[in-house]
Amino acid sequence: MMMFNCDYLEGAHEKILKKLLDTNLEQTPGYGEDPHCEAAARMIRDMVGDEAAYVQFLVGGTQANMTILSYLLRPHEGVISADTGHIAVHESGAIEAQGHKVITLSGKNGKLCADDIKAFVKAYWADDTTEHMVKPRAVYVSYSTETGSIYSKEELKAIRKVCDKYDMYLFLDGARLGYGLMSPEADLTIKDIYELTDVFYIGGTKQGALFGEAVVFNSSISHKDFRYYIKQKGGMLAKGRLLGIQFEALLEPDEDGSCLYFELAKRADMLALRIKDRLCELGFQPCGDSPTNQQFFILPNKLIKKLSKKYSFSINAPVDKDRTSVRICTSWATTDEAVDTLLKDMEKAAKKLFNGKA
Amino acid sequence: MMMFNCDYLEGAHEKILKKLLDTNLEQTPGYGEDPHCEAAARMIRDMVGDEAAYVQFLVGGTQANMTILSYLLRPHEGVISADTGHIAVHESGAIEAQGHKVITLSGKNGKLCADDIKAFVKAYWADDTTEHMVKPRAVYVSYSTETGSIYSKEELKAIRKVCDKYDMYLFLDGARLGYGLMSPEADLTIKDIYELTDVFYIGGTKQGALFGEAVVFNSSISHKDFRYYIKQKGGMLAKGRLLGIQFEALLEPDEDGSCLYFELAKRADMLALRIKDRLCELGFQPCGDSPTNQQFFILPNKLIKKLSKKYSFSINAPVDKDRTSVRICTSWATTDEAVDTLLKDMEKAAKKLFNGKA
Amino acid sequence: MMMFNCDYLEGAHEKILKKLLDTNLEQTPGYGEDPHCEAAARMIRDMVGDEAAYVQFLVGGTQANMTILSYLLRPHEGVISADTGHIAVHESGAIEAQGHKVITLSGKNGKLCADDIKAFVKAYWADDTTEHMVKPRAVYVSYSTETGSIYSKEELKAIRKVCDKYDMYLFLDGARLGYGLMSPEADLTIKDIYELTDVFYIGGTKQGALFGEAVVFNSSISHKDFRYYIKQKGGMLAKGRLLGIQFEALLEPDEDGSCLYFELAKRADMLALRIKDRLCELGFQPCGDSPTNQQFFILPNKLIKKLSKKYSFSINAPVDKDRTSVRICTSWATTDEAVDTLLKDMEKAAKKLFNGKA
Amino acid sequence: MMMFNCDYLEGAHEKILKKLLDTNLEQTPGYGEDPHCEAAARMIRDMVGDEAAYVQFLVGGTQANMTILSYLLRPHEGVISADTGHIAVHESGAIEAQGHKVITLSGKNGKLCADDIKAFVKAYWADDTTEHMVKPRAVYVSYSTETGSIYSKEELKAIRKVCDKYDMYLFLDGARLGYGLMSPEADLTIKDIYELTDVFYIGGTKQGALFGEAVVFNSSISHKDFRYYIKQKGGMLAKGRLLGIQFEALLEPDEDGSCLYFELAKRADMLALRIKDRLCELGFQPCGDSPTNQQFFILPNKLIKKLSKKYSFSINAPVDKDRTSVRICTSWATTDEAVDTLLKDMEKAAKKLFNGKA
Repeated sequence: MMMFNCDYLEGAHEKILKKLLDTNLEQTPGYGEDPHCEAAARMIRDMVGDEAAYVQFLVGGTQANMTILSYLLRPHEGVISADTGHIAVHESGAIEAQGHKVITLSGKNGKLCADDIKAFVKAYWADDTTEHMVKPRAVYVSYSTETGSIYSKEELKAIRKVCDKYDMYLFLDGARLGYGLMSPEADLTIKDIYELTDVFYIGGTKQGALFGEAVVFNSSISHKDFRYYIKQKGGMLAKGRLLGIQFEALLEPDEDGSCLYFELAKRADMLALRIKDRLCELGFQPCGDSPTNQQFFILPNKLIKKLSKKYSFSINAPVDKDRTSVRICTSWATTDEAVDTLLKDMEKAAKKLFNGKA
Repeated sequence: MMMFNCDYLEGAHEKILKKLLDTNLEQTPGYGEDPHCEAAARMIRDMVGDEAAYVQFLVGGTQANMTILSYLLRPHEGVISADTGHIAVHESGAIEAQGHKVITLSGKNGKLCADDIKAFVKAYWADDTTEHMVKPRAVYVSYSTETGSIYSKEELKAIRKVCDKYDMYLFLDGARLGYGLMSPEADLTIKDIYELTDVFYIGGTKQGALFGEAVVFNSSISHKDFRYYIKQKGGMLAKGRLLGIQFEALLEPDEDGSCLYFELAKRADMLALRIKDRLCELGFQPCGDSPTNQQFFILPNKLIKKLSKKYSFSINAPVDKDRTSVRICTSWATTDEAVDTLLKDMEKAAKKLFNGKA
Repeated sequence: MMMFNCDYLEGAHEKILKKLLDTNLEQTPGYGEDPHCEAAARMIRDMVGDEAAYVQFLVGGTQANMTILSYLLRPHEGVISADTGHIAVHESGAIEAQGHKVITLSGKNGKLCADDIKAFVKAYWADDTTEHMVKPRAVYVSYSTETGSIYSKEELKAIRKVCDKYDMYLFLDGARLGYGLMSPEADLTIKDIYELTDVFYIGGTKQGALFGEAVVFNSSISHKDFRYYIKQKGGMLAKGRLLGIQFEALLEPDEDGSCLYFELAKRADMLALRIKDRLCELGFQPCGDSPTNQQFFILPNKLIKKLSKKYSFSINAPVDKDRTSVRICTSWATTDEAVDTLLKDMEKAAKKLFNGKA
Repeated sequence: MMMFNCDYLEGAHEKILKKLLDTNLEQTPGYGEDPHCEAAARMIRDMVGDEAAYVQFLVGGTQANMTILSYLLRPHEGVISADTGHIAVHESGAIEAQGHKVITLSGKNGKLCADDIKAFVKAYWADDTTEHMVKPRAVYVSYSTETGSIYSKEELKAIRKVCDKYDMYLFLDGARLGYGLMSPEADLTIKDIYELTDVFYIGGTKQGALFGEAVVFNSSISHKDFRYYIKQKGGMLAKGRLLGIQFEALLEPDEDGSCLYFELAKRADMLALRIKDRLCELGFQPCGDSPTNQQFFILPNKLIKKLSKKYSFSINAPVDKDRTSVRICTSWATTDEAVDTLLKDMEKAAKKLFNGKA
């Protein structure tokens, strides 16, 4: 079985494993207060170009989202998200469990639009029953999004502007940050992301680490007592250095000024776009338009059934009674061979499907 | 200034005040464990025709909604509401503050539709990431709704059926129950409401009491420990008998088998429908179609400005740059004279507006 | 049956009822934004001598405690209370339900001691695992306390000093504020209370009102968005003016510069102290030493049983197998006659009990 | 620097690392639904002797405690803990953040006593204001405790009996389960633990794993929807198989019917007891009496200062101005050499200290 379901099917890149082995018997203080976390934080501060950026490492994405939003919001405040946003749909109500409303606006290709946010917030503040409604205090975006799309610099700047005008935090979920930044269509750098947001994170789990998300606070906002929140929400890893070690391996700059993190992401994007381009050529219908490692296609149920003996995809949603949208996902671990094999089988399928029709 | 903003502008009906005076020096135990609460509960059990119905009295609507939903739901469970529902819009996130997601579906004329609920819930259970999404466990409806509309018996039965099929509670917010039941278009009785829902409440605040909502649990579901929730959420009134006394006054059956509660509601509905019919005749444009005490009309901003020297309405929402939707609300305390005066002024306004155009 | 259980057995003082009747048909905006709430707030600002004091009216004590503490604290912060404090014992976990730990210290006669608070907080900040423990951020005291005792000016000043040193809010639960201030042993004024605390409230429920607590924020701390909290926690009364009206009646200054609120409290204290002094003379054993309207005595179970045919007290706690501590409580509504009768019966009982022994 | 601070200073046992490497490129479903988690769960079901035991794997202890207690308790229910219990002291209020009161009783040598629990719960149910107080619904014990002590079979059975009588869950925090069970003083087996508790966990983090706690529900109680809680609280690891793999390595039965988990714990206990016995012989004063891997000694501050150039201990609490209680902790990774060196240095210190005095 070749699995293309998601980007967390395997363990971790060998460089990470090697570093874990090499450091295994070091004795370090717990809870993220060790030299490895400090070294990885320094790398990140260098990448974003601010010595005062504040970095903490958490284990997973839901944990990061709930801890950060709980920190940014007071009880009567809520966060604006696209209706397809991870916090709105796929975290079992983790944000509401912290007491906060997730205010959903219709996304366009998985993205929030600055004008929609502005219209909503403007109407909120114009209402005279303001205190009877949850106060919008933060905007949640992800990069790349659930549907693989990415914000352009212009789009993100426009959202930042609305946030500034209406006193809202801008928080970017970077579970798939690398896949976004390495997309051929990306015009944002990690420095831009840092400068345009109040908090964001660099996702490790889906990009070659065993687990781990590096949370980065812009130096312009307070991070006082954030570590209490990490502990209280159950996110403080006893052997915190495991997070530092992994991010050291991922982010250590190589000669070209790049690093493993971005190289792995780039390769995964390339493989995904190879699949995308070929499937489109073959006549298959994409669902949305993703320039990153997640590709969505509408396939006949019969074909899905047939392919499922050899491949596993993520079933997204039924389109009609005969067709379903599926997600094909590549990762740091996807092999060229797996892609080759898949494309060959899709070529055969296309021949049967579209020639038959023609 | 004549106020038509809402149905809680004045104090309470004189019969209630008299009963409060008459009982003032009685000494009773606190927290709702007094003879008056017991007597009022008995009246309710008689009305709904079930000696085993469980009754508790709370001070206000938001408190009732959050206490009841917190009781019905476990942390990972959410409640389905129309997007215009009070809990979704106007309670400052009180339900989310209890940890629960309010799952909103598009309402039709302020009402949830059984088919929409079914489609949503069916898709939920068909998904294979069920445990990553909030489990829909209750349906919230109000009667009459925020927009003055009411469910027909058939509509409510259809929702009940979906709830039964998918193991969800049906909870009815009856802040305006009387106005709903007394509408000439209503085909439901309070007994029907009791039988079709798991929990509902009889709103006092907006229907002639100083404050108070009588919560009724169907005998088929557990109410064990519900009083702990009332206390913990801050809703247990020390002098609980004030609630019992008011509901005694409102619900005591008169010779015709009716009671003050329904008579007051009926009169308010009649006044509202008089306003509605006349305004329509005069050529004003209603917004939605309400058969109860809340009427919504689209008026020119200029007219609203002029009227606002003498009348006060509730501003609902701008329709375009020249017109706004306003709510005109009657209550147990609205006088015939106020309605007469309003209608006369509207007649003059109509003459000027529509004759000028013609 | 003559009830001495508590101070919320009856309705309200007739002056309050009269004012409710007189204003009943006024039309006012809801939610506490009416002229009566404004007038009552003005009276309070005058009493505390600060035009910038911020006043809001809530329905009950648990609601006030949970709303205020939720406002003052962030999720990782807790409140220090005496182990006998109302929030620690008798509110079904309302503070924990807001997410906050109630940190209990051993009280002395129901009161926290500044030195104990200081020792605890100092040790907290000296620990190197600070962020693994709830941060003490507020101190909760009540005046008078659960056991009827009151803080002296010196004691409260000492606590204030600790709060200042360790950056903690001082919050005073004044559900029985009047009984405290009117005690012959009191050396604090309401102005002192205002100046020494960050937030306190003037309890109405137990002191002659139907219900209601007037929350007062010192102008030195922020009250921004506090009304959102009131709404979200279910404490925003639709007909908010009912609270304003009652506090107007209670606090309107009379010719002597006093007001109904203090007069009622003074009288109740006097009656309670009359009971206390006489019972002590007769040889009954007090439990603690209260100078206010709540008196605690250790009585033989046999006597309690006998008295219970005619009187009702609050059973506090078994002392040993033959004796129990009971609370005898007076209020604004206690009559001289009831006290006379009680004392006569206690004299008879004493004769039988102590002469028999002698 | 030789560190004896705690039992999570190093990475993981090499057998675990090897298994992580060997399985690294396997493709498995996420979120704990993979063959490794299933295999490890099977091993646990075998160990506890119940095919119906329900097993889930979580990342850390605070996360396990808060997720399990949130699952077991309804909002008005609390958990009884020793005042030294981890949930009462060292989790930044994680349980209160879930809305629940931690009810603390005085521990004896870090342990709850069945009689104290019974007295408390009996008094609770005898009170007539029950619904104003948090309902005790669970008892939290740890094995071994924060102070290294362990419950005897008789003690745990007595607590179980109280739980049964008063309808409370018994939950055992096994972050240091192995160290407890392998103590020469232990008379409990893991099967006993399973049978006597409703839920417990097998701690990996402090016993040789990189991280991970295996939660075990007794088949007699419901575990329905527990995975929703794991996800909502942020505890569902995307690459869940990392937990399964580690527990497979730890729990795989060897020829003697033992397993790595117990062998590592046993060795750590032996080293700790060697330290304990020798320090006692030398005249140092133990603090409490621990038969497991954590040893507490009262040392002169001067000695601590001197030792701190070479060793690191955990500072527990100042005893008086000259002496402090420290924790000396061994683990799976402690070497014989480290212990030898420490003991030699302590012998020298003893000579200087006690001979000087003699």
